[in-house]
Amino acid sequence: MKIAVDAMGGDNAPQSVVEGVEKARDAFEDMEFVLFGKVDEIKPLVKDQTRISFEQADEVIVMNDEPVKAIRRKKQSSLVLAAKAVKEGQADALFSCGNTGALLAAGLLLIGRIKGVERPGLLSTLPVVSSAQGGFNLLDSGANADNKPEYLHQFAVMGKFYAQTVRGIENPRIGLLNNGTEPHKGSKLTQAAYQLISEDPSLNFVGNVESRDLTNGVCDVAVADGFTGNAVLKAIEGTASAVMHLVKDSVKDANLFGKLGALMFKPNLMKIKDRVNPSRYGGAVLLGVKAPVVKAHGSSDAQTVYYTMKQIRTILNENLLSKFKTAFQTQDEEQN
Amino acid sequence: MKIAVDAMGGDNAPQSVVEGVEKARDAFEDMEFVLFGKVDEIKPLVKDQTRISFEQADEVIVMNDEPVKAIRRKKQSSLVLAAKAVKEGQADALFSCGNTGALLAAGLLLIGRIKGVERPGLLSTLPVVSSAQGGFNLLDSGANADNKPEYLHQFAVMGKFYAQTVRGIENPRIGLLNNGTEPHKGSKLTQAAYQLISEDPSLNFVGNVESRDLTNGVCDVAVADGFTGNAVLKAIEGTASAVMHLVKDSVKDANLFGKLGALMFKPNLMKIKDRVNPSRYGGAVLLGVKAPVVKAHGSSDAQTVYYTMKQIRTILNENLLSKFKTAFQTQDEEQN
Repeated sequence: MKIAVDAMGGDNAPQSVVEGVEKARDAFEDMEFVLFGKVDEIKPLVKDQTRISFEQADEVIVMNDEPVKAIRRKKQSSLVLAAKAVKEGQADALFSCGNTGALLAAGLLLIGRIKGVERPGLLSTLPVVSSAQGGFNLLDSGANADNKPEYLHQFAVMGKFYAQTVRGIENPRIGLLNNGTEPHKGSKLTQAAYQLISEDPSLNFVGNVESRDLTNGVCDVAVADGFTGNAVLKAIEGTASAVMHLVKDSVKDANLFGKLGALMFKPNLMKIKDRVNPSRYGGAVLLGVKAPVVKAHGSSDAQTVYYTMKQIRTILNENLLSKFKTAFQTQDEEQN
Repeated sequence: MKIAVDAMGGDNAPQSVVEGVEKARDAFEDMEFVLFGKVDEIKPLVKDQTRISFEQADEVIVMNDEPVKAIRRKKQSSLVLAAKAVKEGQADALFSCGNTGALLAAGLLLIGRIKGVERPGLLSTLPVVSSAQGGFNLLDSGANADNKPEYLHQFAVMGKFYAQTVRGIENPRIGLLNNGTEPHKGSKLTQAAYQLISEDPSLNFVGNVESRDLTNGVCDVAVADGFTGNAVLKAIEGTASAVMHLVKDSVKDANLFGKLGALMFKPNLMKIKDRVNPSRYGGAVLLGVKAPVVKAHGSSDAQTVYYTMKQIRTILNENLLSKFKTAFQTQDEEQN
């Protein structure tokens, strides 16, 4: 398998992207990488060019570029050229740590939807505090600001296949993010989506779930409209980070006795920090486009890039996308 | 001022409600309380009946009652009778720690909207981690599942007056909760609401804000549709609580050396726990109805009930509702 890598996207690019790619190359013999970017800059960073090739890209899409405009205008950017390589079958998946909106736009506009998928959805994996399984999936976590009930039903189906295939959960529990757990609760959108999802016998639907229970593992896959999903994702990340900062600051403010205590307790606190770190759970995946399009955090280090490459490898090896094609093409034919 | 108290609502009712009421009565000579509930149960808990009276209510609305049905059918419940006392002018504000939905329904259906207010919104106060000011307001945090841009504009206006009057912030920074900070970002709803809010010269609008920045104090008042606001509120509360549990569990899992360290550091950790505790910031207020309708957490202790009574006292003493009446009646007349 060959991965098209936007080597210029992200806060630590291209250094940490290159390091992560080399780590993945060393670990997985079936993986090849094409690095898109300023070859002059990238090539000297690569220690061993085995299964790594380079494609020159003169432009870079930066964080504050307007996504759709950037995709249309910066045709020589590392992201656009990498996406085109996937579209043309020269690579099997697209990876970037850069501008999320631009990556979504590249996935939607350049790589394109799978037939029968109404709207691709962005799937994120977040930590579960109390459980051995370690995480839950949230989708749509930001691809669609305006949503219809049918999109949410498809997110449930795609989330189920992802959790089965990539996370190895046999019969994933699907929850619908709502403002109460009772079946009648919610907006017109969630009430209609509840009907559609509950009537689908292929889904192990556990009903409505509330955002406060997500990090306690109330479901394996939480389905949301992309606006609310995005807000919840950012609220969870922001709050976890804010509380960890409070802990850090409280060490500074402690007296000598307290500081000594904190030092002795520190290894345990570091474990928590690692546990709530979302990048540990891999990248966000745009589900419903014709190839895996995967976004790692802008601040990703080499280890996170490596984890995300491992995740992409599983998606490809387990043929996740063929499951979508089968599910939605049948549905499409039934409707037509 | 006289407060109608649903003495039966909440996990620790009536005990902690009564204790909190007595604390507030001792602190504020201008406050009187009418406790609605099972007088047999409540009266023996009251140590001193000064400025406290009782009204018998045979029924109780419980947590899993369906709100609107409960309001209509349980006409002898402590909540319904307390709301009616407010409606009929026998009391100036309504307080409950019980079923939130039922309290909202009581506010909307029994006490009623202020003329010119399209939809009352629920205002919550949440902690800001990094700032001296200590908190931000989020509204609507759950009264309206389906929203129009005009509602969000009114939430901004009501939130401004609340922050000015109750929190003493001269020129509160109003943010619109959105899935990106750029002005063009968002759903159809937030794009239209952005226009309305940005065109209102009476508002100090700081533009779009993201949920991850709320606990860092990016604005004093965050305006949201009630569905997203509710999801963000619960995500922040759930995550803060989950991380604090992780810290607690990690003490259990520590070796003797780590445990000793945790013990020495504990006073500092307790301060954080207190700081992220939402009940410290008072109750949630339904803004836009004809009297203050205030909800304290279901798990409120006497101290939280006391804080919330203090908050109600400020709302009444500062004449918050007369500001709404002036603002929206003028608007109403201009439109007609």
